[in-house]
Amino acid sequence: MTKAYDPLASVQAAGPPGTISFVYGLPDPVTFPADDLRLAFEKTFKEKASLALQYGPEQGYGPLIDYLREKMGRGESLKLERPQITLTSGAAQGLDHICTMLTRPGDPVIVEAPTYHESLKTFRDHGLHAAQIPIDEEGLIVGRLLPILEKLKKRGKRIGFLYLIPSFQNPSGITLSLQRRKAILDVCQAFDLPVVEDDVYCDLIYEGKPLPSLFSLDKKGLVLRLGSFSKIMAPGLRLGWMLASPPLVDVFIQSGLRNMGGGANPLIAIALDFYCRNGLLEPHIKSLQDHYRAKRDIMLRSLEESMPGRVHWTKPSGGFFIWVELPPPLRAADLTAKAKEEKLMFFAGDAFFAESPAGQYLRLAFSYVQPEKIQKGIEKLSRLIKRELLSR
Amino acid sequence: MTKAYDPLASVQAAGPPGTISFVYGLPDPVTFPADDLRLAFEKTFKEKASLALQYGPEQGYGPLIDYLREKMGRGESLKLERPQITLTSGAAQGLDHICTMLTRPGDPVIVEAPTYHESLKTFRDHGLHAAQIPIDEEGLIVGRLLPILEKLKKRGKRIGFLYLIPSFQNPSGITLSLQRRKAILDVCQAFDLPVVEDDVYCDLIYEGKPLPSLFSLDKKGLVLRLGSFSKIMAPGLRLGWMLASPPLVDVFIQSGLRNMGGGANPLIAIALDFYCRNGLLEPHIKSLQDHYRAKRDIMLRSLEESMPGRVHWTKPSGGFFIWVELPPPLRAADLTAKAKEEKLMFFAGDAFFAESPAGQYLRLAFSYVQPEKIQKGIEKLSRLIKRELLSR
Repeated sequence: MTKAYDPLASVQAAGPPGTISFVYGLPDPVTFPADDLRLAFEKTFKEKASLALQYGPEQGYGPLIDYLREKMGRGESLKLERPQITLTSGAAQGLDHICTMLTRPGDPVIVEAPTYHESLKTFRDHGLHAAQIPIDEEGLIVGRLLPILEKLKKRGKRIGFLYLIPSFQNPSGITLSLQRRKAILDVCQAFDLPVVEDDVYCDLIYEGKPLPSLFSLDKKGLVLRLGSFSKIMAPGLRLGWMLASPPLVDVFIQSGLRNMGGGANPLIAIALDFYCRNGLLEPHIKSLQDHYRAKRDIMLRSLEESMPGRVHWTKPSGGFFIWVELPPPLRAADLTAKAKEEKLMFFAGDAFFAESPAGQYLRLAFSYVQPEKIQKGIEKLSRLIKRELLSR
Repeated sequence: MTKAYDPLASVQAAGPPGTISFVYGLPDPVTFPADDLRLAFEKTFKEKASLALQYGPEQGYGPLIDYLREKMGRGESLKLERPQITLTSGAAQGLDHICTMLTRPGDPVIVEAPTYHESLKTFRDHGLHAAQIPIDEEGLIVGRLLPILEKLKKRGKRIGFLYLIPSFQNPSGITLSLQRRKAILDVCQAFDLPVVEDDVYCDLIYEGKPLPSLFSLDKKGLVLRLGSFSKIMAPGLRLGWMLASPPLVDVFIQSGLRNMGGGANPLIAIALDFYCRNGLLEPHIKSLQDHYRAKRDIMLRSLEESMPGRVHWTKPSGGFFIWVELPPPLRAADLTAKAKEEKLMFFAGDAFFAESPAGQYLRLAFSYVQPEKIQKGIEKLSRLIKRELLSR
């Protein structure tokens, strides 16, 4: 029953030796600030051990909450009051907790098509029914939102929420335009529909200015915005945050989960507070932008240089992913299987659709692969696509 | 809107200066092995940073899982296969996740009366209806289980699970007897009823031999057993584990929460693995047993020396809590209010009942209070009770 333990087997999907994998959007471990974090933990154990090792306040460690408020004040001109934020054990836990506290099984939720497949799984775990609305190069097609909401309302359905990944979306890399953000909020306000804004990539911006978040544009307290240290520092820390109106934040603080376990990861939060207040986070984010921009550029250049003309792809201005559209009659599932034989891996886009997958998309993650392998992998993919097109 | 930040305000309920509080069952911070943990984290950052800071496998860090299997093999003669265990972000997260994955709102769950009040809150968050069965000095009164199950079955209800805290129960300090454990399992097997065994206190045993867990007695794979590092090391680590049958463990590993966030707290798990494999955990648990046994003894002796004859209390052989029964006509809620005026705090027992609270119980936690304050606090409580009895 026991088998050899491979600690990365489940997340890395590295395939057999020599495989180039664009499958998972893991942060690049060369970027982890291990030494600075080591010092922050040392300081925590020396100066704050009793606090860091005890149950923490349900909202999360106050000084880190205040640091995050200051950071978003500086970076996004977002004025946050303390009751508008709570720490989470990562965005995954935040999303799971939102489903527990704000929905009931059978509730519909509205998602983008495509959207993050693991969020779809969380929705299924909570018995929610995801209805999808397609996106284009500006994000969610807002005109499709109203009819769906009206249809569900007519059927007497209480809708859980609209789930959006507005910045450098996983899997498409697309960013929701400012105009669309405003238009979506108008519709949601008319229907009193909560919006879950999964914004874990917002700091990983490679050009241009960040757009105002849905949370910052919302005047009615409908938006819950999830953030995370996973992409901007390290996922193994399991720490994130949620922004929402004070009464909504209170729902989570007053939950059984938080009352029983205390706030999210007190030890980690205190160490991160030391790290952040040492002025290390914001320069680190800048260096991550440079690091991942370079990887994105290699992938985009390789795609341009080697792909046949009928293949299209997105040009994300941030995040970890490029979304490729195959020309007919190619199917992503077939191509994925054939690529694997040649030690090349990527994610067929089907899993990212709540309903009727489109079949012709691939997700390519450029975050984790070594730069020299990106070009090689894309060239391999291009050759494979050309061969498949010729053989049809 | 912002107010001065008191990091312990929400968990410690310390009251005004000079207050003696028996309210919360926090571990005593003088027991936290801060230096050893500091070294374990240092080693983690030096030797395993890339692994510790990355997403971890959904089941949890394998070597720590193996250590826990070895420890339970040594301490409880429990033979655990690796697919029978998964790490959690503490028992609180484990219980919350069980509710998500195994129940639906409206399901009844069966609990002890009294039981842990924050678990009741988690059940309410998930829309579950808790039905209570009283306990006596041997734990759950098994004769009451069958009629409830039959009644619910007749009504066509799918029952979520039976929730038990078998060792040194929170809040009563009572331990479920071996005979009752077996009898409960017989009934649950007949009804195919899952059992959630919240066993976070089992290692904190102050005399006698530990009883076999319900999990170890179960032959049908019905028991999910929750364990935690919170009481035997430090709650701020937010790490625990769940034992269950392999197909059940797989339900949690394959969940959206785990697929999205990876396994529970990889950094913490790797550091704890270093700590544990250095041979430090089991001697630490022995020293905790001595530490808390001494505190329990002070409280029991103080109760014996000062309480009037008509007051009764439990004599726990482990854990953090003593459960006091007041003589009529005294009411716990009145006494709690009066004690607060005299800078003495404890927990009125009403919150620990899912239905119709009994009204005459107090929970006294001896774990967190300094030893010299335990005697003083109990003497104060005794004087208060005597005065209240005389004034009626």
